Amino acid sequence: MIRGALDAAESAANGSPTLIFFGDRRVIEPIVRGSRHEAVHAPRCLAAEDALRLALRGDMESSLRAAMVAVAAGDADALVSAGSTGALVALSRHLIGLLPGLRRAAIIKRFAAENDRDFRMLDLGANLRTDATQLHRYASMGVAAAQAAGVSPANVALLNIGSELSKGPRVVRDAARLLADDPRIRYVGFVEPHRVFASDVDVVVVEGFAGNIALKTIEGAAALARHLLRRELADIRPASAGAPSLADAIRRLDRLQDAYNPQRYNGAILLGLREVVVKSHGGADRQGFAAAVREAMDAVAGALVEKVAART
Amino acid sequence: MIRGALDAAESAANGSPTLIFFGDRRVIEPIVRGSRHEAVHAPRCLAAEDALRLALRGDMESSLRAAMVAVAAGDADALVSAGSTGALVALSRHLIGLLPGLRRAAIIKRFAAENDRDFRMLDLGANLRTDATQLHRYASMGVAAAQAAGVSPANVALLNIGSELSKGPRVVRDAARLLADDPRIRYVGFVEPHRVFASDVDVVVVEGFAGNIALKTIEGAAALARHLLRRELADIRPASAGAPSLADAIRRLDRLQDAYNPQRYNGAILLGLREVVVKSHGGADRQGFAAAVREAMDAVAGALVEKVAART
Repeated sequence: MIRGALDAAESAANGSPTLIFFGDRRVIEPIVRGSRHEAVHAPRCLAAEDALRLALRGDMESSLRAAMVAVAAGDADALVSAGSTGALVALSRHLIGLLPGLRRAAIIKRFAAENDRDFRMLDLGANLRTDATQLHRYASMGVAAAQAAGVSPANVALLNIGSELSKGPRVVRDAARLLADDPRIRYVGFVEPHRVFASDVDVVVVEGFAGNIALKTIEGAAALARHLLRRELADIRPASAGAPSLADAIRRLDRLQDAYNPQRYNGAILLGLREVVVKSHGGADRQGFAAAVREAMDAVAGALVEKVAART
Repeated sequence: MIRGALDAAESAANGSPTLIFFGDRRVIEPIVRGSRHEAVHAPRCLAAEDALRLALRGDMESSLRAAMVAVAAGDADALVSAGSTGALVALSRHLIGLLPGLRRAAIIKRFAAENDRDFRMLDLGANLRTDATQLHRYASMGVAAAQAAGVSPANVALLNIGSELSKGPRVVRDAARLLADDPRIRYVGFVEPHRVFASDVDVVVVEGFAGNIALKTIEGAAALARHLLRRELADIRPASAGAPSLADAIRRLDRLQDAYNPQRYNGAILLGLREVVVKSHGGADRQGFAAAVREAMDAVAGALVEKVAART
């Protein structure tokens, strides 16, 4: 993770960002020594079994809390963590705070789609169930996130199980009316999950429970595809050593897997906060963590928080 | 579709099933003439814009209604349709009826997983929202379906966004308690969508809305993988014509795509009815429709309806 963050800082498009690592100094120091980057000794991890209540009250020190306090104090522009989503959402709301007028944060992430396109989907689980007004707000926040990344105007759709107006739960149908009536949103209707990868939708809005199910289903299907590919190719490789065309095919397949590999598109943003907070996948490797740090740097460069504030 | 159904009948594991095709006789007759199979002239399709109310009342004739009446009357053992899910669920409940004690049907489907395993998931959208009691009932129905297919005892899990007891919406947490208390169900806990393909779970229980989202997300991710594979391999093929190892790889990749191709695992069962009703994917090709018909024949051979009746 440390090396991935350093990779991201080295390849930064804007300036030379300084990284501050919160964790065990003995692990971090040897890697960052001599660079412009810093280590803050906060050796205690917030464990899954820690009571969130204690963490919120500050009775329990953790690297996550220390980092969040630094961001809240303006000592850093963005936070990236691979810790638990629940802790990250709760601590962020408590220590960093929501933008004025907002009652909920939302988790948004970018996904690879066909024809080198991508789309953003939210909420991926900051809140499980919600109402139509909140889905409308997610849409505004998603449009701001797309805009911060240079996608404007953004086509907005609601994730649903059918494309006709009568389809889906009431909360989704009610949200459709709110979105259709909002002149600041280019609402294009319902989109079904199997069409979203081939559609021209830029922002997909969904309740947190179904959104998280969709997120993890994509991850599971991609992992299954990788598993099957590896199995199928395993006994071809040795038999054809040196055959350049097959080696080429395998290299291409490796690259292709990247495209729907959650590692490459790692880094979900907690939207609606006063600062940039990015959640990395818990199992992220060096490349994956670099992607999450890049996501945070891009959000800062694109003035994400200001754009969300202006739209909500 | 007709040829796919004939393929399935030819390769039937048990006996020589007779197919009755409801539709335009002029299309069907030339294909089935001289065989043991039959055509019933019912040329009118139930269109998407037809009012379901009229279809239910019988004021509107359709091939779907005619076929369903035949199944309800005992003239056929199972029905396979590629029509709209909503119409199929509504007409089935009305004309065929639910098993005693059941208030809802559920849609169940088999999915390919790692290591040549598969699992079944329900409800995939017969009902959008439901309560814990109903999720418990889905679990019993799913166990019966697994048993009819020779999977017994079946490991049952609830689809959720985390594995800890405190995770997920209340309806899912409440259902977990009901399932843990039921000695007839081997309940193994929550399963997250990205783990289900690599787990040892046989039956995955989920509310219809999230289940349908998961189903279509799998479909979308598989289509994206196929799209990317095709694109990557497109310009390798001609350059390496005649290279046996690459041709072999491509053949294997084609086979591999089959494994998570909805066509191969086509055919979802409407569970809880007094007869076997199978929903084929609307875009199914010959191979896909054959899979759906095979699903229906297997359900009859495995005494699916009786097993569901015994468990609910």
